[in-house]
Amino acid sequence: MRIVKAGGGRNINWDGLAGDLAEVADREKTVLIHGGNAVRDDLAARLNVPVKRVMSPSGVSSVYTDKAALDVFLMAYPGLASTEIVARLRRRGLDAVGLSGVDGGLWRAKAKRDLPVREGDKTKLLRGNLTGRVEAADVRLLEVMLEAGFLPVLCAPALDEDGNIVNADNDIAAAVTAAAIGATTMVFLFEAAGFLAEPDDPESRIAEIRSGEIESCLAAARGGMAKKLIAVSRALAGGVRTVYFGDGRVEHPLRDALSGRGTTIF
Amino acid sequence: MRIVKAGGGRNINWDGLAGDLAEVADREKTVLIHGGNAVRDDLAARLNVPVKRVMSPSGVSSVYTDKAALDVFLMAYPGLASTEIVARLRRRGLDAVGLSGVDGGLWRAKAKRDLPVREGDKTKLLRGNLTGRVEAADVRLLEVMLEAGFLPVLCAPALDEDGNIVNADNDIAAAVTAAAIGATTMVFLFEAAGFLAEPDDPESRIAEIRSGEIESCLAAARGGMAKKLIAVSRALAGGVRTVYFGDGRVEHPLRDALSGRGTTIF
Repeated sequence: MRIVKAGGGRNINWDGLAGDLAEVADREKTVLIHGGNAVRDDLAARLNVPVKRVMSPSGVSSVYTDKAALDVFLMAYPGLASTEIVARLRRRGLDAVGLSGVDGGLWRAKAKRDLPVREGDKTKLLRGNLTGRVEAADVRLLEVMLEAGFLPVLCAPALDEDGNIVNADNDIAAAVTAAAIGATTMVFLFEAAGFLAEPDDPESRIAEIRSGEIESCLAAARGGMAKKLIAVSRALAGGVRTVYFGDGRVEHPLRDALSGRGTTIF
Repeated sequence: MRIVKAGGGRNINWDGLAGDLAEVADREKTVLIHGGNAVRDDLAARLNVPVKRVMSPSGVSSVYTDKAALDVFLMAYPGLASTEIVARLRRRGLDAVGLSGVDGGLWRAKAKRDLPVREGDKTKLLRGNLTGRVEAADVRLLEVMLEAGFLPVLCAPALDEDGNIVNADNDIAAAVTAAAIGATTMVFLFEAAGFLAEPDDPESRIAEIRSGEIESCLAAARGGMAKKLIAVSRALAGGVRTVYFGDGRVEHPLRDALSGRGTTIF
């Protein structure tokens, strides 16, 4: 069982990824999880609903989500991004089905109504935040889909304890899902060559990271990458044996990542 | 097997419908199909992408869909409308899963790239239309979901012969789905008391229509209702025994419709 998480950046090569998935899908059951940042940001700009990026006191970036922002999120992720990805995969012969974390109660999140954010030297609380952290995955729906030969294509949102729709980080959710479904392999594809020792230097890719080294990498990592490393820790603790970071922009994003051309973490 | 199609109007009582579905869901397998007109129209206005309503030469209204309109459609139907409906049903204890006609190749449409439209006394062709008419349903995904105890919640879009995403009429698609899956009952819920002999007179509800009378009703029907009657003909020809039209705005939309308080067609 393999979980492939593809980022929502503008330059992800979806055709290449679709082709790679078609190559390997017969050999190992796969769940595809995707982002939708670029679609969301474009739409937020068109609707004049600014995306409010905030920084946690520990330096992890996230997005503050009020009702207007949540609506934009739903339009962008399960709406535009997911439907287009599923259609694209189907054109490659993959029997894809789009799902969100709401469907079948897949992703259960702990709501973070009050969001502590760093502003300069101070920490303040933003209230009314419709974001949650996925803490459990009920993977029965995925198992039913996989058993029947479908390729599940999954993205946020999730549901909180009270059944409310909440924005949620796809990387953490992917790790929780991997542990719950017993995946042995995870692949994260994004717009970089792998884990970079110097975030601005594409030549500084680190080819291998041992699980014991994640902590020190975390210190060097920025926003999105920090969250990915936290997700990796969670996945490895949950039973995943190998996590591959790979460049989503290349001709064969998945093939290259699995052959160790990005960063292999174990 | 029962198909319930709920319109996308602003005044559909979704909480009432969710409660009714929770009451009857154990007794008969159900597929819920929904619209999203009101959400789509609001969003189109916010994005300044006007909804282009056109009239076919035979007097059936439809929407001309260019790429910008299709994007709005995806944001509204599988995005905002579906996700909120699924979350609402889940809060009522229903194990709902949102799907679009793209998922699992559910709805196969014949593309209508050139759309004949009536303008005054003339007919002209609008080109580049991203709309299709659903002509076949591959219901394996629905069967897998139902067998596993999930409640499928389905809406447009569909895929055309070339695998392109196309806007499609949910009523016709619902009828094609009913025939393909062997449903014996269909329910259409919308913002009227049933089939009205005089569209503007709510007191003119017709309680029963025999299949042989549909043709003459069609002559009296306007845009959306004409399409529903065409869908009903198709459903009855495909093996459905009884179709219920019911008021989606009342306290118990489904319960009332099934007890014959709208229009029963057989």
